[in-house]
Amino acid sequence: MTVPFERAAVLGLGQIGGSLLHALRAGGVDTIGYDTDADTAAAASTAGFTVAPDDAAALRDADLVVLAMPLPQVIDALRSAAPHIATGAVLTDVGTLKSPVRDAVRKHAPQTMFVGGHPLAGVEETGWAAATPDLFRDAPWALTLEDDTDLDAWLRVAALVCDLGARPVPTTAADQDAAVARVIGLPHVLAEALALTGLHGGPLGLSLAAGSYRSGSRVARTRPELVSTWCDGNPALVDALDDAIARLAQARDALAAAGSVLPLARAGHRARIEWEQRRVEPVQIDGDADQLRALGRQGGWVTAVVPAPDAERGVRLLGRRPAASAG
Amino acid sequence: MTVPFERAAVLGLGQIGGSLLHALRAGGVDTIGYDTDADTAAAASTAGFTVAPDDAAALRDADLVVLAMPLPQVIDALRSAAPHIATGAVLTDVGTLKSPVRDAVRKHAPQTMFVGGHPLAGVEETGWAAATPDLFRDAPWALTLEDDTDLDAWLRVAALVCDLGARPVPTTAADQDAAVARVIGLPHVLAEALALTGLHGGPLGLSLAAGSYRSGSRVARTRPELVSTWCDGNPALVDALDDAIARLAQARDALAAAGSVLPLARAGHRARIEWEQRRVEPVQIDGDADQLRALGRQGGWVTAVVPAPDAERGVRLLGRRPAASAG
Repeated sequence: MTVPFERAAVLGLGQIGGSLLHALRAGGVDTIGYDTDADTAAAASTAGFTVAPDDAAALRDADLVVLAMPLPQVIDALRSAAPHIATGAVLTDVGTLKSPVRDAVRKHAPQTMFVGGHPLAGVEETGWAAATPDLFRDAPWALTLEDDTDLDAWLRVAALVCDLGARPVPTTAADQDAAVARVIGLPHVLAEALALTGLHGGPLGLSLAAGSYRSGSRVARTRPELVSTWCDGNPALVDALDDAIARLAQARDALAAAGSVLPLARAGHRARIEWEQRRVEPVQIDGDADQLRALGRQGGWVTAVVPAPDAERGVRLLGRRPAASAG
Repeated sequence: MTVPFERAAVLGLGQIGGSLLHALRAGGVDTIGYDTDADTAAAASTAGFTVAPDDAAALRDADLVVLAMPLPQVIDALRSAAPHIATGAVLTDVGTLKSPVRDAVRKHAPQTMFVGGHPLAGVEETGWAAATPDLFRDAPWALTLEDDTDLDAWLRVAALVCDLGARPVPTTAADQDAAVARVIGLPHVLAEALALTGLHGGPLGLSLAAGSYRSGSRVARTRPELVSTWCDGNPALVDALDDAIARLAQARDALAAAGSVLPLARAGHRARIEWEQRRVEPVQIDGDADQLRALGRQGGWVTAVVPAPDAERGVRLLGRRPAASAG
């Protein structure tokens, strides 16, 4: 498939938005960026990118609009941008939680063709200076496909994400937020608790803290304000924490009764190793929303969107899914 | 200080014991190894090391004896070895928990000069094949200094640990086990809980799990039986888990009440960054047990044991401790 968009406007030029600007331009898409922060806008301009003076100018003639600002700023940005989005343009975003953005788009920009997006990429660094065109290589990238999502718009965004070297995962906002509670929210909350509690035993721990403290608390290096935008307002994280706390309490009670952490350690080890070693198999599906959502629910992703005149919607999707014998 | 021992017997040739055999020989110490596992013994012998047919043969003429088998095997090994340890020889070990080994030595080998040791080195890999002479480079290495520890023996072991490129941390068995509960036991239990709970939301999480799940559950790759030897029987880990669970429950309740994880995230972030950025300053002390234990309690360590005819015990210790303004 050739480049599925001609002109992309990226609003918000932090690490994700900036990396997108780099990667889209490298992929042959005409790009224009915008950031409310003048220093960020100037840095992008100095680096040779076209930067608009306001959102309206950025949005003119864009057939792809990317909201790439932090989640708390999305609603205001959307309200400001909505009147300027060209008819027929596709709107997407990059936020960690998809339900709040879905709700905001339905309210403030119902006329747009919206496909919620969440690239699982990025490190503890933030801002334009941390942007790099390779950020998305092999990264999972949730793309929401609701009953009211325009399937052609979804397929075009999926093709673009494949072009960026990432892995579109078809899902709904509700399903992705529930999964993200466990694989992003929970790891961050546990890392914060470890970072804090691990060193609460006195200064001797400062010198003895080594590999397991370092890796376990690594993501506590992330700016706390970002962590809270990934966690707050996600009811599934309450369930995930209840689940984790119950397992920890069970291990705690076993230890207190002269028992062992071995049952938890065995189960944790098995889960981690099975995840690492899971095998995947290739899959081909037509452009069908139910089939796509099923692929995502199975733990699969899309690897390519290819023209197929004989297929529904004129395209066929290649993908990967966990092999039947895995796990 | 020149090599503080002439002949070292290393009993147990897994990753730690094997690495010690490599490093001691590279440091000019005459070494002999022994392992109850015939394949391991053969592998060490094939690699050019002197390997004894039994523990008695290994211990003959050794002025340093290292117990490097897994903790559950230490008591039996000690009972078998004790009668063969030469008078005046120094005994040390490498186990994660120091109180059980201290108690076993007092019972089974009270005549030896015992200095409990715990190198905080090693990765998820285990066994002779994972042994490497550089394993201990810059690693903290707890060395127990109790009221009944022979100070000269302690100083000789500390000098050897410095020669291996590691950082002797003077402490008591009780203090080190309390610290280890928080910086080793807790990170492992949390990682196991995350490895398991993170993927309990269904297969969609398999594809969306990325950086934070990967680093947070990294140490769940460790063999579960090893994890349990580092955790079980350490009462301080019950307290550490109570502390962590209380913080997690607080974050959980805040989320359930439409609040934020921000207070926990801020505190965790601060603890991690302060740990990373802590500054240390050089310190010099004479060979005095109270001063050494104080250095360890402050978060400091020894960098060198140097001859000093004017000083107590004829040596002076160079070290590092957290700078007064740190934290």
